[in-house]
Amino acid sequence: MAPNFEYPKKPQNTVKRYNSRATYDLGAVHSVINTTSVLHVSFAPSPDEPFPAILPMIGVMGSFEYPSSGIDEPLDCYLHGYVSSRLMRLAREAPNGLPVCIAATKVDGFVLSLTPNSHSYNYRSAVLQGYARPVETDEEKVYAMQLITDKVVAGRWENTRVPPDNVEMTSTTILRVKIETGSGKVRQGGPHDEPKDENRAEITDKVWTGVVPVYETLHAPIPSATNKVKQIPAYLDQYVSEVNKSNRETALNAVNEP
Amino acid sequence: MAPNFEYPKKPQNTVKRYNSRATYDLGAVHSVINTTSVLHVSFAPSPDEPFPAILPMIGVMGSFEYPSSGIDEPLDCYLHGYVSSRLMRLAREAPNGLPVCIAATKVDGFVLSLTPNSHSYNYRSAVLQGYARPVETDEEKVYAMQLITDKVVAGRWENTRVPPDNVEMTSTTILRVKIETGSGKVRQGGPHDEPKDENRAEITDKVWTGVVPVYETLHAPIPSATNKVKQIPAYLDQYVSEVNKSNRETALNAVNEP
Repeated sequence: MAPNFEYPKKPQNTVKRYNSRATYDLGAVHSVINTTSVLHVSFAPSPDEPFPAILPMIGVMGSFEYPSSGIDEPLDCYLHGYVSSRLMRLAREAPNGLPVCIAATKVDGFVLSLTPNSHSYNYRSAVLQGYARPVETDEEKVYAMQLITDKVVAGRWENTRVPPDNVEMTSTTILRVKIETGSGKVRQGGPHDEPKDENRAEITDKVWTGVVPVYETLHAPIPSATNKVKQIPAYLDQYVSEVNKSNRETALNAVNEP
Repeated sequence: MAPNFEYPKKPQNTVKRYNSRATYDLGAVHSVINTTSVLHVSFAPSPDEPFPAILPMIGVMGSFEYPSSGIDEPLDCYLHGYVSSRLMRLAREAPNGLPVCIAATKVDGFVLSLTPNSHSYNYRSAVLQGYARPVETDEEKVYAMQLITDKVVAGRWENTRVPPDNVEMTSTTILRVKIETGSGKVRQGGPHDEPKDENRAEITDKVWTGVVPVYETLHAPIPSATNKVKQIPAYLDQYVSEVNKSNRETALNAVNEP
């Protein structure tokens, strides 16, 4: 088996707190990005402004140069969303692209222990840092548009009116982020209490401990007022079922220690 | 009725794109923060580092000075999480506190239209900007710890071993963010297609359009190996039911235009 690719540990991405939960594995980090509906993208708006900005965006990992790359291989992050003209200008003007930080977090459960301080979440999180630039060529733009559309619902692209026309191509902005560093964190398992509480019956007889698994549910698709297709298409029906099954299993599996 | 409080529109928080979806209403913005399990908190780590940092944290709105304040009144944001020593040092050393940006986004549905470019999410998002400082007094720390614990499961604090002992108080770090600006965005409704596609039967006969509602589900609580409380307590059982009902209704209500 080939060795797993890992992100290099640099000062800014090395996890210090609870570092046994850290992962630098490309596959693990990229999977969290690809299964999270909304990414949070941070950047510095200007030298005069004290606050960083955060935009919620849709994003997906991909490689236009090597489209057959697996999820555990080096990939770029393509971002789409309500890209402000400010963000676009910054990404276009910066000589090496705009430095951004991209974060995604999935909560898999509430971990309830004897005392509030030991409460926790089961979760998977990913953070990427890299340089964002607007995608320039139509070929790469269409490649990224398909990835992004199929992230929302697998197989959706080929089941819509494509390709985009000229107006749509011009009005769509996609950012490509060249990743410099990345890391992830994963917490699984039940509550961890301390002997000072676990050995006192007046506490353990009173306080329920355990996990409330949490997962995202997709409801059955609801047709629009103008929809003309009578049956819900198989690819859509199947996607809803598969995501629901996978999300529920992931949250339930996280209840037990790995 | 008293007028709604709104966040002042400054250059950095004024929504320009799709501004009809914007809200500056304190109640609307704070509600998104308070119902989102994980907030993403961005800050500038140091002048030498090009990339902003993002940490996933638990956060809740509150006012230690005026604890009876409503959700639609001026509030601080209390943050708890794996606060890095770097973040703590920056928050302690900055003369006015550390400038941070806090973001929360709830996805309520996938909006599927005739062509990829018109695809969208139903969602509610909130962004706050303010100055973070560590909470110094034990009284305010306990106030914030209770808010944060009860955010995970309503009523959890009083049903655990409290108050925290001295070791727990010392080892817990809470940040209080004084909010300078805030804004939110809300998208509801079905797909919006253009006449160029809607009037072509070869497209509308083939492409299903509508909404896949999305919501977070809490599974029935699963006891830990060491749990001694035989029945799931009523406050917990009720919380799970209420959150599930509310989340589902919110996503289904979002399918229709407001």
